[in-house]
Amino acid sequence: MVDPRPGLLAAMRIGVFGTGVVGQTIATRLVELGHDVVLGARDAANEKAAAWVAATGERAGHGTFADAAAHGALLVNATAGLGTLAAVASADGADLEGKVLIDVSNALDHSAGFPPRLSTAPGDSIGEQLQRAHPTVHVVKSLNTMTAAVMMEPARAGEGHEVFVAGDHDGAKTEVSALLQEIGWPESHIRDVGGIEAARGLEAYVLFWVALRMALGTSEFNIAITQQS
Amino acid sequence: MVDPRPGLLAAMRIGVFGTGVVGQTIATRLVELGHDVVLGARDAANEKAAAWVAATGERAGHGTFADAAAHGALLVNATAGLGTLAAVASADGADLEGKVLIDVSNALDHSAGFPPRLSTAPGDSIGEQLQRAHPTVHVVKSLNTMTAAVMMEPARAGEGHEVFVAGDHDGAKTEVSALLQEIGWPESHIRDVGGIEAARGLEAYVLFWVALRMALGTSEFNIAITQQS
Repeated sequence: MVDPRPGLLAAMRIGVFGTGVVGQTIATRLVELGHDVVLGARDAANEKAAAWVAATGERAGHGTFADAAAHGALLVNATAGLGTLAAVASADGADLEGKVLIDVSNALDHSAGFPPRLSTAPGDSIGEQLQRAHPTVHVVKSLNTMTAAVMMEPARAGEGHEVFVAGDHDGAKTEVSALLQEIGWPESHIRDVGGIEAARGLEAYVLFWVALRMALGTSEFNIAITQQS
Repeated sequence: MVDPRPGLLAAMRIGVFGTGVVGQTIATRLVELGHDVVLGARDAANEKAAAWVAATGERAGHGTFADAAAHGALLVNATAGLGTLAAVASADGADLEGKVLIDVSNALDHSAGFPPRLSTAPGDSIGEQLQRAHPTVHVVKSLNTMTAAVMMEPARAGEGHEVFVAGDHDGAKTEVSALLQEIGWPESHIRDVGGIEAARGLEAYVLFWVALRMALGTSEFNIAITQQS
């Protein structure tokens, strides 16, 4: 039998938490790649999610966070960091157990105006909070260091730039790396930065990203690591 | 009369606060470039500073933080962030007034082990604390996003990477930019990221830098900004 998706991963069922720009951009790309995606919201009747399904076609579905968790063999958290723990906690524990959860969230608190602050305490991060709250889930922090369009279409930020993965489970990081490569990230620019505690750095970086975005006048940029050759 | 230092800034008197690796590396490079540098410490008899002077020659001096402030037409803060406010406060206010102070410090608190945490509250930074404490000083946050060897010899991190400046006084940023160019930074990679509040991002970035250093196994790296051409 001929592989129907040569060079690509086998089609997966994926649950994406969050119906904002980040969740929709990720979900749309994953559907384009042939995966079956359920977009999860607090409310099963979420209008943005329903509109996304109508626009995206047969491999797209929507429901509650719990529905998305039940659907996905792989999960993506694209909720805002302040809502992440509640969103993931609303899923049935049995629907989370042993699954890879890519945490794209950022710990940004906009309540005191611009620039935003981190909502987490020093020495903590949303990624670690998620991992502590759900010890059987394999949390991989990734993709939170750039705008959604660049996450899913790396060429929009030029060439040679980086995406980072952090997590305690090597197999989960390998699985996320395979998905990132399918999305279009070169393997040599998928950088493993260590265990889930590295999420502190990845989330803190975003305060710097905000300053860069203001200075550059665009969100469509990223960073490359340079070293002496 | 022929310019004795063609292409370079006129020789300046510079005060550098901090006798650690960062302070010494910066002070040594500034002496190499022809400037007259006083390295300041809490204690005028600081042995590291005395050894540095003995090794560095006639354009090098040392003394207290107050001595360094009195000497410098331009000031560089290379103390650890936890000690920065006390160090600068120990100078005579008249010796600070109207001067440019390049703040290289980082707000790292190592008391809870590795990885370090930020010592500042959310929505604050050492750069802003310095500016608030000394409103007549022109604080420019810069160079804190890399290891000292790369600050002073950018080629050690390869090519095309960035140094950032943040501060409320445009003339001060221009002056710092001229010094950075003299050190070896290409003008096109000296990135103005805004007012002193951008120090929050520059200091938060360092938590990410720590994770990268662990992953890369070296301190001699930096980041380049990439965009679609």
